[in-house]
Amino acid sequence: MIEITLPDGAKKKVQQGATPMDVAKSISEGLARNVISAKFNDTTVETTTPLTIDGTLTLYTWNTDDGKKAFWHSSSHVLAQALEELYPGIKLTIGPAIENGFYYDVDFGEHHISEKDFPEIEKKALEIARGKHDYKMREVSKADALSYYKQQANEYKVELIENLEDGTITFCDHSTFTDLCRGGHIPNTGIIKAFKVLSVAGAYWRGDENNKQLTRVYGISFPKQKELTEYLHLLEEAKKRDHRKLGRELELFTFSQKVGQGLPLWLPKGAALRERLESFLKKAQKKAGYEMVVTPHIGQKELYVTSGHYAKYGEDSFQPIHTPKEDEEFLLKPMNCPHHCEIYNHGHFSYKDLPKRFAEFGTVYRYEQSGELHGLTRVRGFTQDDAHIFCTPEQLNEEFKKVIDLSLYVLTSLGFDNFTAQVSVRDLDKPEKYIGEAENWEKAEQAIINAAEEKGLNFVVETGEAAFYGPKLDFMIKDALGRKWQLGTIQVDYNLPERFDLTYKGSDNELHRPIMIHRAPFGSMERFVALLLEHTGGNFPLWLIPDQAIVLPVSEKHEKYAEKVLSSLENNEIRALIDNRNETVGKKIREAELKKIPFMLVVGEQEEASETIAVRRHGGEDLGSVSIEQFSDLVTTEINSTLKSF
Amino acid sequence: MIEITLPDGAKKKVQQGATPMDVAKSISEGLARNVISAKFNDTTVETTTPLTIDGTLTLYTWNTDDGKKAFWHSSSHVLAQALEELYPGIKLTIGPAIENGFYYDVDFGEHHISEKDFPEIEKKALEIARGKHDYKMREVSKADALSYYKQQANEYKVELIENLEDGTITFCDHSTFTDLCRGGHIPNTGIIKAFKVLSVAGAYWRGDENNKQLTRVYGISFPKQKELTEYLHLLEEAKKRDHRKLGRELELFTFSQKVGQGLPLWLPKGAALRERLESFLKKAQKKAGYEMVVTPHIGQKELYVTSGHYAKYGEDSFQPIHTPKEDEEFLLKPMNCPHHCEIYNHGHFSYKDLPKRFAEFGTVYRYEQSGELHGLTRVRGFTQDDAHIFCTPEQLNEEFKKVIDLSLYVLTSLGFDNFTAQVSVRDLDKPEKYIGEAENWEKAEQAIINAAEEKGLNFVVETGEAAFYGPKLDFMIKDALGRKWQLGTIQVDYNLPERFDLTYKGSDNELHRPIMIHRAPFGSMERFVALLLEHTGGNFPLWLIPDQAIVLPVSEKHEKYAEKVLSSLENNEIRALIDNRNETVGKKIREAELKKIPFMLVVGEQEEASETIAVRRHGGEDLGSVSIEQFSDLVTTEINSTLKSF
Repeated sequence: MIEITLPDGAKKKVQQGATPMDVAKSISEGLARNVISAKFNDTTVETTTPLTIDGTLTLYTWNTDDGKKAFWHSSSHVLAQALEELYPGIKLTIGPAIENGFYYDVDFGEHHISEKDFPEIEKKALEIARGKHDYKMREVSKADALSYYKQQANEYKVELIENLEDGTITFCDHSTFTDLCRGGHIPNTGIIKAFKVLSVAGAYWRGDENNKQLTRVYGISFPKQKELTEYLHLLEEAKKRDHRKLGRELELFTFSQKVGQGLPLWLPKGAALRERLESFLKKAQKKAGYEMVVTPHIGQKELYVTSGHYAKYGEDSFQPIHTPKEDEEFLLKPMNCPHHCEIYNHGHFSYKDLPKRFAEFGTVYRYEQSGELHGLTRVRGFTQDDAHIFCTPEQLNEEFKKVIDLSLYVLTSLGFDNFTAQVSVRDLDKPEKYIGEAENWEKAEQAIINAAEEKGLNFVVETGEAAFYGPKLDFMIKDALGRKWQLGTIQVDYNLPERFDLTYKGSDNELHRPIMIHRAPFGSMERFVALLLEHTGGNFPLWLIPDQAIVLPVSEKHEKYAEKVLSSLENNEIRALIDNRNETVGKKIREAELKKIPFMLVVGEQEEASETIAVRRHGGEDLGSVSIEQFSDLVTTEINSTLKSF
Repeated sequence: MIEITLPDGAKKKVQQGATPMDVAKSISEGLARNVISAKFNDTTVETTTPLTIDGTLTLYTWNTDDGKKAFWHSSSHVLAQALEELYPGIKLTIGPAIENGFYYDVDFGEHHISEKDFPEIEKKALEIARGKHDYKMREVSKADALSYYKQQANEYKVELIENLEDGTITFCDHSTFTDLCRGGHIPNTGIIKAFKVLSVAGAYWRGDENNKQLTRVYGISFPKQKELTEYLHLLEEAKKRDHRKLGRELELFTFSQKVGQGLPLWLPKGAALRERLESFLKKAQKKAGYEMVVTPHIGQKELYVTSGHYAKYGEDSFQPIHTPKEDEEFLLKPMNCPHHCEIYNHGHFSYKDLPKRFAEFGTVYRYEQSGELHGLTRVRGFTQDDAHIFCTPEQLNEEFKKVIDLSLYVLTSLGFDNFTAQVSVRDLDKPEKYIGEAENWEKAEQAIINAAEEKGLNFVVETGEAAFYGPKLDFMIKDALGRKWQLGTIQVDYNLPERFDLTYKGSDNELHRPIMIHRAPFGSMERFVALLLEHTGGNFPLWLIPDQAIVLPVSEKHEKYAEKVLSSLENNEIRALIDNRNETVGKKIREAELKKIPFMLVVGEQEEASETIAVRRHGGEDLGSVSIEQFSDLVTTEINSTLKSF
């Protein structure tokens, strides 16, 4: 008998040679039906792998990331078999699971495949899946493995095997198909109930552009047809909400090849939206006792050597800026903290002055390879809603709670109500990884956990995830499509106060080291606006949206009244525009819908006579005819319902 | 007889050999009394130089820059004579007039002079001046000149003479003193009625640090004692108002050696003041139809090659920023215009969309040598209140007038009421100096002049002062000390629209080139704040000043009431603070005066009982006891009297 320990700590005696599936069955039939993969003593195993020693076993279902990985990796075998059967003579290379689905890189030789071939491939794959073929791992010698693929004239697999260490190599068989494979499969192909080929793309063998270009076939699969349908819907929605597309359509930002890739140019509507976000946060920050500062976008290289950022970013980022005559070197600032430390140092503060909270919408520059750039989410220059709090150890808990309050205020004012938090603490077994005194760490971690508890956050504590300079708390939000984003970090820092020799005079008249908190509720203006675009699909909260209303005269006759309405709206501080083109109201409404304008104000004979406007809400709801004052009240009420004061 | 033409075009026949002074006498005795220098056919001459040919003669009095130059240059001879008489054996080198006064660089040999010697030097100089010695120019051969100074063992003058071209060399004699001199003197020393030695400093011979260090003696002189007194008062005032000193005292900004020289760090009070200025301008700009944009602080080198800025700033400014892996080069932006041109190009505008007015508080970086840096007026990074207007030729006059309106609004809201304007136009004789069609230039110049006239500006037209790319209008203001500053440029630009191939679709459906206007009413936030500090001595307009009021409890007993007052003030949006240190009210008032706080609100027994505050204005005026509401009304009324809405 061997002893199996389960993740909850429960222990189970089973026969030596029992499989993870056997263990699952011994727990419950229901679990056994859902188990699709397993991990034993930190190694991925098959559900059919015999267990021969004592150890820890984790059983994965579809609802876990590891379960999905096994599911999709197994599906890539099915895809490969389908392709081999449909296109004889092709050469398979590698086929891993990815975040959403899997791919297989294939040398199609004389064959060419395109979107029109996808249905046939899917049909063939589902046929194979329905055969309920078991996945069976088999050990072969390196020589046998090489000879197998040499016979098939597959130079790619041969190269892969040659690069493997000598010893045993594993093959995986299912149905008539065999692949070189490390393992981690679902029990059998029958679990795959839905199968979709998503796209094809070119990919160089081993990612090296000097190698042959292969065809990468992307696919995804699910244990239920319904899940595929939902996924495809989500994909469609995500495409519609792609912030690059919406940013273009709503005229928020653009890029210029001449200015440089990854360097956004904010167009008027985008710049105004961004300013509304900034004003919103500034106002809350002012109430929370922050003081704004302004610092330059460059600093001497020495500044970043002192801060340690040069060691971190130096070689991989924008290179130093030299001066023409003097021997000076500057760097584009990758972070605002060193500048704020210098401002702190200027102050010569005493304990009575603390906490000091310096805030800045600071634009920083970090080099990203051009291939990594993506809309506003991966850029080379971005503006952080940065602030640094300098406080005494005794103030840390209180300050942390205040930052949580501010972060929650930001999230809820912007319509994010689905979020969790993660507190990252030290790995106590690896003290060498961290700087600062253990006693301070202990206090800081406890301060953060207490703060998170006192604020009623839904949070997990992750051991070993702290930065080397201090523990932190991250907010993780789910957007409208259920996608997770990390947003808003609060970090405790013992490192920079040390490096910049920051001090305050204590009540004992001695100099002490303050603690520094870094925080940015938005993260960066660029990333936040991208996220907000994808979350809302461009239907921003009313207080934030570029145009709140559009006046639509039904004909030329009512243009003058429409202009009067527009000017009344402006006097009521409602951002509005007018569409007085010679088009039908129907067409004007359709276009206003596309522009995501929340309120369409139709004005015709009747409205002009009664000095009203016929209000139609984005999406179609008819709010009837009201006066400008009534409409203005409606807008104010709606804004106040999301945008409370801090 | 020869014919002399005067600056007003009048012609005068005089005897050959008549002097400028003779001409002055022939015009009026009053003029002759005041003439101190002259220019004949573009060459500076003595008032005693015989005129032998026809020509144009300008006569200078003390009230002209050239007159002052001759006065101060002549005074430097007197200083030199005084020094020679007081310190025998010293060696004189050079002694020019400067903007305010003159200096003489002297090798004092074994002598040392310091501030305590100044009265004696001044006494001696005035003694010499009172001798009413004529300045007499005398031609000598190079050989004689060399032999004169070799005899005196003055290697400096010898070196100067050796570097002169062969031919006639001029000496100037007055009293017993002789100096190597090109000329340009007042008639005699008697005109110098006031004489002051200002300072001494080290200066290398010929400005080369490998040469011997000499002593530079700075002085100033006047034709009336009263003028010297006024000047010294001004100097004292300027010292008090030095923006670097006030910036430190009022905690507005600082510099950090670690961040880098010439890169200001705006402290909380300064950043808030700057933001108030920005908000003020943003609000006016919004009403004037500007749209804010946001652009990065770097751009590809190619962008600036296209704009022409690389040719202008490239070699002498911050050097290109390289990327680690890719072959890309970026520059810190020296100007915002190229970015705004790219935003314009993104829009594909038609004539119906114009004018487009893009505004940005854009931070730009330009290298300055460390020796040239000065507080906030000469920095390496500064934020321009920049905007670019893109319009059709027909819109130019109207747009220009609107920009003048905005500029005047800015000037008057900030208490500058002493200003003039300068319109800079082409030199019609040098068409090769300018780009763009003559017809457009003609129109643009006329548009600017008409705009200036229509707006009733007090302006002069300067021929040949236009930029190569277009005509412009500059505002010149006089500050509280009468010093002139250039502030707020409006420039017409035909160049960048060409270089960036900017177009708009005209009503004829063809593409046309828009005209661009650059404008910045503040110039830069840094320079403007410096100027405002020196103009107001830190007593900013009430709407702008960091702290508007300070609450001063007369004793600890009234602290609670003082806190209540503070919170009422905050509710009334009055920026206030409290001084509840255990000090006398007298001391608190003195310190509040130094901090330039406009209102001191004393609260004691009586005020607490009657729920009032005793208001004392900065400077001492007692406004009596009033309620918070009354005080709040007073503040609002005062703000509204300077800060009208645009």
